[in-house]
Amino acid sequence: MRIIDISKEKDFLNKLFDRSKLEMDEVNKKVDKIIWDVKQNGDKALKEYTKEYDGLMLENLLVSKEEMEEAIKNTSRDLLEDLTKAKENIMKFHKKQLRNSYSLYEEEDIILSQLIRPLERVGIYIPGGKAAYPSTVLMNAIPAKIAGVKEIVMITPPCPDGSIKPSILAAASIAGVDKIYKVGGAQGIAALAFGTESIPKVDKITGPGNIYVAMAKKKVSGYVGIDMIAGPSEILIIADKWANPKYIAADLISQAEHDEMAAAILVTDWEPMAYKVMEEIEVQLQTIDRKEIVKKSLENYGAIIVTSCMAESMDVVNAIGPEHLEILTRDPFEVYKGVKNAGAIFLGEYSPEAVGDYFAGPNHTLPTSSTSRFSSPLGVDDFIKKTSLIYYSKTALERSKNSIVRIAEEEGLTGHANSIRVRFGEVEL
Amino acid sequence: MRIIDISKEKDFLNKLFDRSKLEMDEVNKKVDKIIWDVKQNGDKALKEYTKEYDGLMLENLLVSKEEMEEAIKNTSRDLLEDLTKAKENIMKFHKKQLRNSYSLYEEEDIILSQLIRPLERVGIYIPGGKAAYPSTVLMNAIPAKIAGVKEIVMITPPCPDGSIKPSILAAASIAGVDKIYKVGGAQGIAALAFGTESIPKVDKITGPGNIYVAMAKKKVSGYVGIDMIAGPSEILIIADKWANPKYIAADLISQAEHDEMAAAILVTDWEPMAYKVMEEIEVQLQTIDRKEIVKKSLENYGAIIVTSCMAESMDVVNAIGPEHLEILTRDPFEVYKGVKNAGAIFLGEYSPEAVGDYFAGPNHTLPTSSTSRFSSPLGVDDFIKKTSLIYYSKTALERSKNSIVRIAEEEGLTGHANSIRVRFGEVEL
Repeated sequence: MRIIDISKEKDFLNKLFDRSKLEMDEVNKKVDKIIWDVKQNGDKALKEYTKEYDGLMLENLLVSKEEMEEAIKNTSRDLLEDLTKAKENIMKFHKKQLRNSYSLYEEEDIILSQLIRPLERVGIYIPGGKAAYPSTVLMNAIPAKIAGVKEIVMITPPCPDGSIKPSILAAASIAGVDKIYKVGGAQGIAALAFGTESIPKVDKITGPGNIYVAMAKKKVSGYVGIDMIAGPSEILIIADKWANPKYIAADLISQAEHDEMAAAILVTDWEPMAYKVMEEIEVQLQTIDRKEIVKKSLENYGAIIVTSCMAESMDVVNAIGPEHLEILTRDPFEVYKGVKNAGAIFLGEYSPEAVGDYFAGPNHTLPTSSTSRFSSPLGVDDFIKKTSLIYYSKTALERSKNSIVRIAEEEGLTGHANSIRVRFGEVEL
Repeated sequence: MRIIDISKEKDFLNKLFDRSKLEMDEVNKKVDKIIWDVKQNGDKALKEYTKEYDGLMLENLLVSKEEMEEAIKNTSRDLLEDLTKAKENIMKFHKKQLRNSYSLYEEEDIILSQLIRPLERVGIYIPGGKAAYPSTVLMNAIPAKIAGVKEIVMITPPCPDGSIKPSILAAASIAGVDKIYKVGGAQGIAALAFGTESIPKVDKITGPGNIYVAMAKKKVSGYVGIDMIAGPSEILIIADKWANPKYIAADLISQAEHDEMAAAILVTDWEPMAYKVMEEIEVQLQTIDRKEIVKKSLENYGAIIVTSCMAESMDVVNAIGPEHLEILTRDPFEVYKGVKNAGAIFLGEYSPEAVGDYFAGPNHTLPTSSTSRFSSPLGVDDFIKKTSLIYYSKTALERSKNSIVRIAEEEGLTGHANSIRVRFGEVEL
């Protein structure tokens, strides 16, 4: 962790934004091959890649009822209750995002509607290994469920013994996932996009993954819908002299422990805070399981930016447009009004990021790498589709026909003009 | 135009969906070079490419006030009124899409909100030449305006004499576009994405374009937001024996005249309709300016599919998920309920596609190539961003702390757990 002078180190911002770019030739070719193979050979290809990458030959990809029951038995009652509480909070928040279709009835002989309907079938990718998080299951499946998606399919790579972490299966059961398949990586994404003998083709794929998964999602996008391609996670904390450096240090560390690419940034207009936080990080680091990851992440993408005033701090915030923004100042409810771009904003000293990651209700899938300028947290909107409906009566079309014909002719599209005229016997053949 | 048996010609659907895939190496390399050049050399690069591709050296890229006034003077009063009426209809329909931010106040000490705010600055691409359509200006700019976007920038390639089609400028004025620049192609997209001396960087780019434009949009996506990459346009008409073959022929032609890649498809359960429509097309073709384009398009991607009953027709509709769907049957209001996937549905014989293209109010930018399975017409949603807001009081965090800590520990993220504990003096250092 070091103090940087943003006016002199412009490169820091570029370095930050560039973390998420996928431009690796080798990964590119491998993923192309995997997708092609799965399209050609279906389940056979999936099983071979599972052997290669996950180290086991599976008979069945589908998780059985017995495995589900076993997993729930192996999850502590406390954790099941915690996940259920989290589910309720997530549902409450996301239900407010539901929208109805609407219709306009104009002049009694025109009907215009926007139909809002759920996607038919959705696929959720859940990473395995160290990044197998039950919270990810809840955050992806629940908005789909609320949208009314008819079938939610989940895929996740198995452990070498063929099992899946019990809390992942428990979360899937709590969230209402319909089917779970043991397959990960680019091969899993290809299976969801094109279907195989055992895995059904879906309409959209959401969920995080490693670089192979991200690349595969990018490649199948257009054949199926995808959510954002999330870059590495990031937090920005804006603090004044009233903030508690212990809390700041803890929250920066909690971000940095995700992976070595994660970015943890403090912006403060009170220079002594910079030193206090650096000291606190050293102390707290001792208590962290993933100490080595935290150290590397803070070295690479950690930064403390000292500004001359709050207004300057806000400029930094808005230039970065962070995924997570914590406001640890005396008046967070005033400060947040100046925030133009952020995925989620955490207000005040008892709203650490972890509250949002697991529990509060808003989604933890958020726009990274400054994309909060134009994109949004995952939500119910990501699992619906809209269709327009247009009905004109004969008299309605007659009233408007001259305007439509004139615009069509201005555009040089006589076929369009004729399609109106022909209905009133006005095409001269 | 020919009759195809969909059960035997499975390839037809694949051919249809594959029209939109951009996999051309040469275009790819050219676009990479152009984007790099514009990033390095700004306006200088823009002017050189404009010389190369549009055939003139420009002094100023910005369209002046005088040029705007001149353009409006050169547009007929009738057309100005038509475009204004269209604008009013588009506004009325899209205003219903506006949504408010919401907040949940839980147990008096938790606040959760979803803020909905407009994008700051948006760029709209409008093609030049034969595809310079004033309706495109309205359909892209008006939803942005309604969303509350602060600045709408439009770019479009100039004619060889340095002018822009008057009705394009008039439509921009009517729709409330803030600034217009004379630049097109991949260079224009690069300018909007990264900014140059004269063109400001935007947050999102929307609007149609040729393959260079589409490829450039795909490449800058992530640095800026983009709307869908639209494939060639398509119509599917579902007709029973009650339909008027003259209207069907006219509407198929109106789709086919867009370009040689456009697809016009009739699905009918009444075989004689197939022959009647083919005859009508031959007759009506004589009256069309773009006859050659229509012929080629119908040859390549035109098709009449004869089914044994309406239910089978509906299966074809849903397998294709067309951009435009016309229902020319005796009971369109019953039939549409069976439609799972479509961009826009036109009901009954006086609602030809052209009504929606220009005038009725719903957007004419619609999902193509079967992407209506998971994507939606352009609308106000495309010009807003959402941000989550989370406030927990000390007592609120205390009530939930055990749950949050337990989930964090299950995920192996002790830093997350500590960020909660540290606030209650529970981290042992």
